[in-house]
Amino acid sequence: MSKLNRRWFNKAATVGVAALLSGLTKAQAEPSEQESNKLIEEAEKQHLNMMTRYGHLTGGEKLKIGMVVYPGMFLLDLVGPLAVFEALMNREIHLIWKNLEPVNNIKNEYSAYIPIKPTSTFNDCPEDLDVLFIPGGVPGTLAMMEDSELIHYLKTKGSKAKYITSVCTGSLILAAAGLLNGYKATSHWVTKDSLKDFGAIPTKGRVVVDRNRITGGGVTAGIDFGLRIVGLLRSPDYARAVQLYLEYDPSPPFNAGSPDKAPPIVKQFLEDMFVGLKESVTKVSNKLKIK
Amino acid sequence: MSKLNRRWFNKAATVGVAALLSGLTKAQAEPSEQESNKLIEEAEKQHLNMMTRYGHLTGGEKLKIGMVVYPGMFLLDLVGPLAVFEALMNREIHLIWKNLEPVNNIKNEYSAYIPIKPTSTFNDCPEDLDVLFIPGGVPGTLAMMEDSELIHYLKTKGSKAKYITSVCTGSLILAAAGLLNGYKATSHWVTKDSLKDFGAIPTKGRVVVDRNRITGGGVTAGIDFGLRIVGLLRSPDYARAVQLYLEYDPSPPFNAGSPDKAPPIVKQFLEDMFVGLKESVTKVSNKLKIK
Repeated sequence: MSKLNRRWFNKAATVGVAALLSGLTKAQAEPSEQESNKLIEEAEKQHLNMMTRYGHLTGGEKLKIGMVVYPGMFLLDLVGPLAVFEALMNREIHLIWKNLEPVNNIKNEYSAYIPIKPTSTFNDCPEDLDVLFIPGGVPGTLAMMEDSELIHYLKTKGSKAKYITSVCTGSLILAAAGLLNGYKATSHWVTKDSLKDFGAIPTKGRVVVDRNRITGGGVTAGIDFGLRIVGLLRSPDYARAVQLYLEYDPSPPFNAGSPDKAPPIVKQFLEDMFVGLKESVTKVSNKLKIK
Repeated sequence: MSKLNRRWFNKAATVGVAALLSGLTKAQAEPSEQESNKLIEEAEKQHLNMMTRYGHLTGGEKLKIGMVVYPGMFLLDLVGPLAVFEALMNREIHLIWKNLEPVNNIKNEYSAYIPIKPTSTFNDCPEDLDVLFIPGGVPGTLAMMEDSELIHYLKTKGSKAKYITSVCTGSLILAAAGLLNGYKATSHWVTKDSLKDFGAIPTKGRVVVDRNRITGGGVTAGIDFGLRIVGLLRSPDYARAVQLYLEYDPSPPFNAGSPDKAPPIVKQFLEDMFVGLKESVTKVSNKLKIK
């Protein structure tokens, strides 16, 4: 990333990507320094204009959001909530991992072509996060439940976040770190009941809120989760604005998104596919109990 | 990527990620050669087992899916449908661009930390795709509408695909290539009406199908779009299985995902934010008309 782009990038982090759009659309993929400066100027004007007119909707302290990334995670678990958080003004987002090496999701096949470059390490990420988020995804989740470095981070610095959150099987990692002990929580439907092996209370719901623990269901629940967070930490109308920005007006062509809605053959297919996963979670939970 | 991982990866491309899950969950992030071989063996067994039992649901000719990627696209536009397609058995997915250099979405801020490595170029991607897909995203869309190399690919080789498809503002690129001339189509709600500048017929709908053109609404419509494609090219029950796998049982915490549902203040906020975008699309369409 050139110095120039870095500057543009830092600016985007302050004013929010969405606010930059009207300026950006006039640019080509690689603006010159002069063009970039003009863009930044326009973006600042646009930002000021939007903040003046809509501050009651978008305003508040700067949000500090930390999103843990790891090898073998499910890309959509991260990218759904990221699209929501990225749309906000006045926030910073940290993609957190042990080091800054790209996280290559070799196990997710095509997602292997979409590596994630962490922006912060466990050491240098802020301690006073508003939101700590962890995505799910097999097989990464199972490895992470036993990853002493990540579990240590979650138990210590990570647990100081105002909200401790997850989507999909990410809740198993929070649970393995003891952070859901006595809390109502959810997970991907296949692994939800396994949460009780770690002292959590498996609870039905697309997004389950218990005090400052917020957990979402499988994969696509990340978008509902993200909007719920914005409604809570900004305002319901700002969450609605992000929903409209992402045109989140879902209309699934089939009605089989949960095990009680899917036809028996479909449910059986998935259960056969996930036999190994359930067994693996039990093995990890037994191992952790012995420790 | 090591030779070993490449082998595993190639295997995953044949049997489908989902089918590999039960084997994978037993592995660590970096399996040894012996472990990898065992995983591949288990995956093959699992694949054979699933195909034998569920072939009527999952079967059919190998699907060839091409997904165009480009700088300044919106990551979720790609990752939603990708999660759906990746879950299928017996398919190949091509991430297509001019060259194999990572596409850095510098304009999408945090998405800049999630670069996409194309797997195929316009030159070497197959001509007989079942699905050609293009995502949207500002500012990339506007630049791509005028990108002669991409437009040439779409008009020639790309247009030979069985289905020509898009999500979000991606339809503007198809339209600029003349591929939606006389076709009903949709786009992000902000840009939907602009489609008529290019001879398309703007049409209401989360996913609009007109003969072999399939276009989705803004960003999150990509998941509905992907399932629709699976229902069409595989079977409704297989689409339901993928829906259940992704736990796509949406439950937005607010009801503002389309302009007719959002409160006036929210709609006004978005319209003010997108003023520049509408102007830019008009400018591009005037320029293209003059050419």
